[in-house]
Amino acid sequence: MTRSTPLMLLLAATFSAAALPAAHAQAPNAATRGAEAGSAPVLVTAAQWEQMRRDGAGYPMFAREQARAEKLVRAMMKAGIDVPVPKDKGGGYTHEQHKRNYQAIQAAGALYRLTGDKAYANFARDVLLGYATLYPGLGAHPEGRGQIPGRLFWQTLNDSVWLVNAVQGYDAIRDSLSADERRTIDDNVFRPMAQFLSGNPENFDKIHNHATWAVAATGMTGYVLRDPVLVDQALKGSKRDGNAGFLKQVDQLFSPDGYYEEGPYYQRYALAPFILFANAVQRNEPERGIFKRRDGVLLKAVDALVQSSYGGYFIPINDAILDKGLDTEELVAGIDIAYANTGDTRLLSVAKGQKRVLLSPEGLQVAKALAEDKARPYAFVPTLLRDGPAGTEGALAILRMGGEDGQALVMKNTKQGMGHGHFDKLNWLFYDNGQRVVTDYGAARFLNIEAKSGGIYLPENTSWARQTLAHNTLVVNEQSHFGSDWKKGQPLAPAPLLFAVTDDTQIVSARMDGAYDGVSFTRTQALLAHPSLGQPVVLDLLRVDGSTPARYDLPLHFNGHIMDVGFKAQSAVTTRPVLGKANGYQHVWVDASSEPGTEARSLTWLLDGRFYTYRFASTAPARALIGESGANDPSFNLRREPLLLQRVDGQASTTFYGVLEPHGQYDGTAETVRGANSRIDRLVHYRGKDASVLVLDLAGGQRLALGIADDPSKGGSHEVSGDGQRWSWNGGWKRFDTATGKGGK
Amino acid sequence: MTRSTPLMLLLAATFSAAALPAAHAQAPNAATRGAEAGSAPVLVTAAQWEQMRRDGAGYPMFAREQARAEKLVRAMMKAGIDVPVPKDKGGGYTHEQHKRNYQAIQAAGALYRLTGDKAYANFARDVLLGYATLYPGLGAHPEGRGQIPGRLFWQTLNDSVWLVNAVQGYDAIRDSLSADERRTIDDNVFRPMAQFLSGNPENFDKIHNHATWAVAATGMTGYVLRDPVLVDQALKGSKRDGNAGFLKQVDQLFSPDGYYEEGPYYQRYALAPFILFANAVQRNEPERGIFKRRDGVLLKAVDALVQSSYGGYFIPINDAILDKGLDTEELVAGIDIAYANTGDTRLLSVAKGQKRVLLSPEGLQVAKALAEDKARPYAFVPTLLRDGPAGTEGALAILRMGGEDGQALVMKNTKQGMGHGHFDKLNWLFYDNGQRVVTDYGAARFLNIEAKSGGIYLPENTSWARQTLAHNTLVVNEQSHFGSDWKKGQPLAPAPLLFAVTDDTQIVSARMDGAYDGVSFTRTQALLAHPSLGQPVVLDLLRVDGSTPARYDLPLHFNGHIMDVGFKAQSAVTTRPVLGKANGYQHVWVDASSEPGTEARSLTWLLDGRFYTYRFASTAPARALIGESGANDPSFNLRREPLLLQRVDGQASTTFYGVLEPHGQYDGTAETVRGANSRIDRLVHYRGKDASVLVLDLAGGQRLALGIADDPSKGGSHEVSGDGQRWSWNGGWKRFDTATGKGGK
Repeated sequence: MTRSTPLMLLLAATFSAAALPAAHAQAPNAATRGAEAGSAPVLVTAAQWEQMRRDGAGYPMFAREQARAEKLVRAMMKAGIDVPVPKDKGGGYTHEQHKRNYQAIQAAGALYRLTGDKAYANFARDVLLGYATLYPGLGAHPEGRGQIPGRLFWQTLNDSVWLVNAVQGYDAIRDSLSADERRTIDDNVFRPMAQFLSGNPENFDKIHNHATWAVAATGMTGYVLRDPVLVDQALKGSKRDGNAGFLKQVDQLFSPDGYYEEGPYYQRYALAPFILFANAVQRNEPERGIFKRRDGVLLKAVDALVQSSYGGYFIPINDAILDKGLDTEELVAGIDIAYANTGDTRLLSVAKGQKRVLLSPEGLQVAKALAEDKARPYAFVPTLLRDGPAGTEGALAILRMGGEDGQALVMKNTKQGMGHGHFDKLNWLFYDNGQRVVTDYGAARFLNIEAKSGGIYLPENTSWARQTLAHNTLVVNEQSHFGSDWKKGQPLAPAPLLFAVTDDTQIVSARMDGAYDGVSFTRTQALLAHPSLGQPVVLDLLRVDGSTPARYDLPLHFNGHIMDVGFKAQSAVTTRPVLGKANGYQHVWVDASSEPGTEARSLTWLLDGRFYTYRFASTAPARALIGESGANDPSFNLRREPLLLQRVDGQASTTFYGVLEPHGQYDGTAETVRGANSRIDRLVHYRGKDASVLVLDLAGGQRLALGIADDPSKGGSHEVSGDGQRWSWNGGWKRFDTATGKGGK
Repeated sequence: MTRSTPLMLLLAATFSAAALPAAHAQAPNAATRGAEAGSAPVLVTAAQWEQMRRDGAGYPMFAREQARAEKLVRAMMKAGIDVPVPKDKGGGYTHEQHKRNYQAIQAAGALYRLTGDKAYANFARDVLLGYATLYPGLGAHPEGRGQIPGRLFWQTLNDSVWLVNAVQGYDAIRDSLSADERRTIDDNVFRPMAQFLSGNPENFDKIHNHATWAVAATGMTGYVLRDPVLVDQALKGSKRDGNAGFLKQVDQLFSPDGYYEEGPYYQRYALAPFILFANAVQRNEPERGIFKRRDGVLLKAVDALVQSSYGGYFIPINDAILDKGLDTEELVAGIDIAYANTGDTRLLSVAKGQKRVLLSPEGLQVAKALAEDKARPYAFVPTLLRDGPAGTEGALAILRMGGEDGQALVMKNTKQGMGHGHFDKLNWLFYDNGQRVVTDYGAARFLNIEAKSGGIYLPENTSWARQTLAHNTLVVNEQSHFGSDWKKGQPLAPAPLLFAVTDDTQIVSARMDGAYDGVSFTRTQALLAHPSLGQPVVLDLLRVDGSTPARYDLPLHFNGHIMDVGFKAQSAVTTRPVLGKANGYQHVWVDASSEPGTEARSLTWLLDGRFYTYRFASTAPARALIGESGANDPSFNLRREPLLLQRVDGQASTTFYGVLEPHGQYDGTAETVRGANSRIDRLVHYRGKDASVLVLDLAGGQRLALGIADDPSKGGSHEVSGDGQRWSWNGGWKRFDTATGKGGK
């Protein structure tokens, strides 16, 4: 183990591990001890704390945050020091107490600086002295989970989070301690914790968000303890060779558009250590230009995360808890630090919604700007977020009309996203009117609720939530994509074919090969506005080409109460069969099923006062089934939600097509109903040599047709005829608006 | 048919039908025609309109309401006059258009007065001339419903509502018309409509809310047309003998506490014509003191209705649509007119939540008071609303702690409530944390949604929503109360035994005889606060005494996701049996069921971040079943909701007891969980000679015991012993708080 020299510490107000000659890094442990000049705060400077102390009260958001922290810490002080021997799983008593403790240490440190009240410093010190007694004797947590169990917590991850938070509080009080106290806490708490993390390369050197928490914890501790080796390990990996560590993670885990491959839910979680540690790097080694790295990818990641939300909640692709949103604590850091680095006043309206700021210089800047009424609305706009470090491995496409509470169509053309990824290539979600309309189950998990498997992912996360059937995309022969093996899926991303945005048409297309052997499927989706329609509609065209006859299932998970089943179906009202045996099929009750047919069918449901009519068909005869999740769920772990399933049997190829139309209004208060009937009279699919046309006949005599080439990424001319009409165009797609001559009221 | 004399009209600014000698009322139709002095507005006087025109713009709520009316009417003017031949059911085009028309007529009349713009008067006139052409030729509506089909609408009720609204607009413009126009509209629209209503005594002379709309429509029309016979019929019934009509309805339909026997949902609906017509009576015949009648029962009814709400929604007992609440249009009239008559500033905070006022003198008063910041909070307090005209036929009990969003325990000890009443004697509902926790299904109906049986009550309203099983009360031998015959139930109200409120204990008790032959059941429920508990808990004691062995079922319909099934049960995960054949049993899927036992069991669920643990047992061996509604529902008419069922078989008597405890917090944003474990260690029931004691052992070593006499309405001393303890008390109940000596952390 290595330490920095006292000389460096005396000379450098900020300090650079990178600048240290390797030879100097061999000084003995004792070198830092008692060096008063080595105890000034470095994560936030003394001058910055002074400014916050002076100005904070003048900005309401900052003052409220300080008051909140005071309330928290006062309550903890009243309850007395409690540093229990680790025993419980997530959600259990010792787990929650250690969480409370790091929050209290961090808050007490800030309050000591912001108020000058020594009682806060003393409290943080006493809690930390409790850890100094406890920690050195700890081995693996008795409920230890994963490859490397934690010590304070069951997962190493939680230990990292403890350290990221607590070290910030410690930094703030460290110069208030006696040399003995400082040495005790340095050597029995922070250094061994950081060394525990960096000493386990199986975790520390991964290119994964758990490792980001570990490197951030280690690096921030390194700055505070003036330990350049810890900093260097944090930045470059445990071997300090650049093959792992923070910089590699920044380069590998985000796409050039700031998309994080696990999806928004984990992006939020991963972002916090990225941003917090980057901020510490920026403060201590501004010459690294960490926020400029890869064209500012860390700041782009904050923006991408905000765009990946609807109604304040993150779009729940992959393993995701549905109630996580823009007001999550992790994103408070993201927004404040991004604003401080960009001055982008759109971010202020997100901060406003968060109703929180950091007790940091960046939080002060946001609070000041809000007090000065500088917030501009955050514009939610059509966005394509390319996936993969080079932006070449698929993409998340978000089509949007009508702004924040309008229509959002999400097409999930991303890569697998590692172990938390779902088997849902070319899946889609739809939002409208502030609601989830076409849904993703998210994760089957009750976070930190002990009664539900200790709060970890439930068995149903594997048996249902991750399976293809639990999504709105193609299932072949009742198997999930990649045979439910994420490692098989990891190298195989969809090929994005098209992303185009005009005033009344937004369109996206992608092709997936390799989700199933010998099966290629191409999906094109469009959001289309038209004066004859109340709201924009979603058009969906999914072409499957297989090498052998198969069962093709296309589920649609919708949210709402069924108003009208617009097709003949046999009801199963006294005994509901279970849909199948495995891969999620065992969790579906079948309520009704139709005979096979190729005619367009419809289903209408009501959600939050708006009607949704889905019209759907396929070129090969399909059955339509209505079902509900919840079978084979003895512990009531699943939410029970409806689905519609289209099933084509015994075909090698088929094309599914459909249109989803929001319409009308049901106002329960005023007892009025408007527009309960669909404005679409007919949906037809016509086929040319290398292209399709989908035709919508609208009430009022208007016709909307969309021509889509089989490979819309290519140029060339296309022609489709049918029903006495001919559509021809050049390029991947074209929209045709005409009158049918059948106009009427 | 009779008319008033011109002399009377010339002399009287306000006018009294009661004062007219019968002989004078025989003057011919022609008498009123062309009398200019008989055309001034009477529902709101010209001077009052003047004042609103002068002051309205100064009060934001009034100005906004006027702007809303302008927008509505401008849009209707732009669309052009459309008075279609009646054709459609509720929700259909002609139905909705006739609704829009009466809204427009009323709004245009007001706007003419408020702006002086003749265009509004002309528009209302032209719409009404359209009706003058249409109406005289109409017979029964082609989709006619009920005994007496309507003419404009399928139900006479809707015709009455049309008239109540439209006549107000007509009153405002009537003096702007030529004598010819006025005669045309008087004689071809309003008079024949009023006569159609009063000429059908099967509807008009009922003591029922449909009749209240009819008498209000007729009476208001009578004032406007200066037709004292219509007014007299409205007040005293079609035969003008006082055996029917408005005054009788005021005397019969409300209890002395202002409770309306059909329950809050219909109280809201019925209240509008009561209040609007009473206001017209007050304006034209103040000497009647209509608002003082029966100690001000109409104003009490407004207050009772507000108390009968939680979270802004009416408590949905009996046939009730769940999304109806305090902001409903009908209650805007109620609040404004009640405030104008009482000056009760608590009502202003309800008006504030409604965000609407009437365009009337009363609305102006409310808008003015709100602009002057006079609103005081509306206090939601424990309330007993006696039922029946004399207050002797049961009661609705509402226990409350913690104010508006705190705990509310509703015990439904009311009488049957006629045809919209449910078979749910001694049912209960529980609210907490702003949420419905123990629920009532309400009505199975999608109001005005044509795809759902035309928007009327669905078949499942009879087969499920009204049945006893769909409630939280005793079912004997799988039959509903009164054999599902409301006429049998109508004369048989529960006997209220107790209603008491102290700081930490609120308690209510009632007994029901006659719901089943030979079965008497007594239920006592209490809301109990205790320092060892996070929130107050509900204690429930239900004693059944029957003459022969029977099956006793006690359902609990809860809202939330099951976290923990605290008892052994056999799961039905691949085939769910249906619970039974009839009386609602055919609509329940069984998910799990236990063996019989007498030990206390528990079930924990999560709702909106709070945990609820229900502990329950019975003195005779009971099975516990978990189920879900939705079986035998081919049209997807039912919401699918969970229930817990306790079942005792083959006993003549048993006692069910339970405690429902809200506890802890799950914060999805902060990822924290607190108090996920119940604070109740044990629930025990001890039995004495004529009393029971329920004991709760609380975490922390506290014990809470509640002694309850078998007949808590009587005095006398009681004693119960058990487990080495003895509890004795005088009177119906007593609470005992002690320490167990087993204190812990």
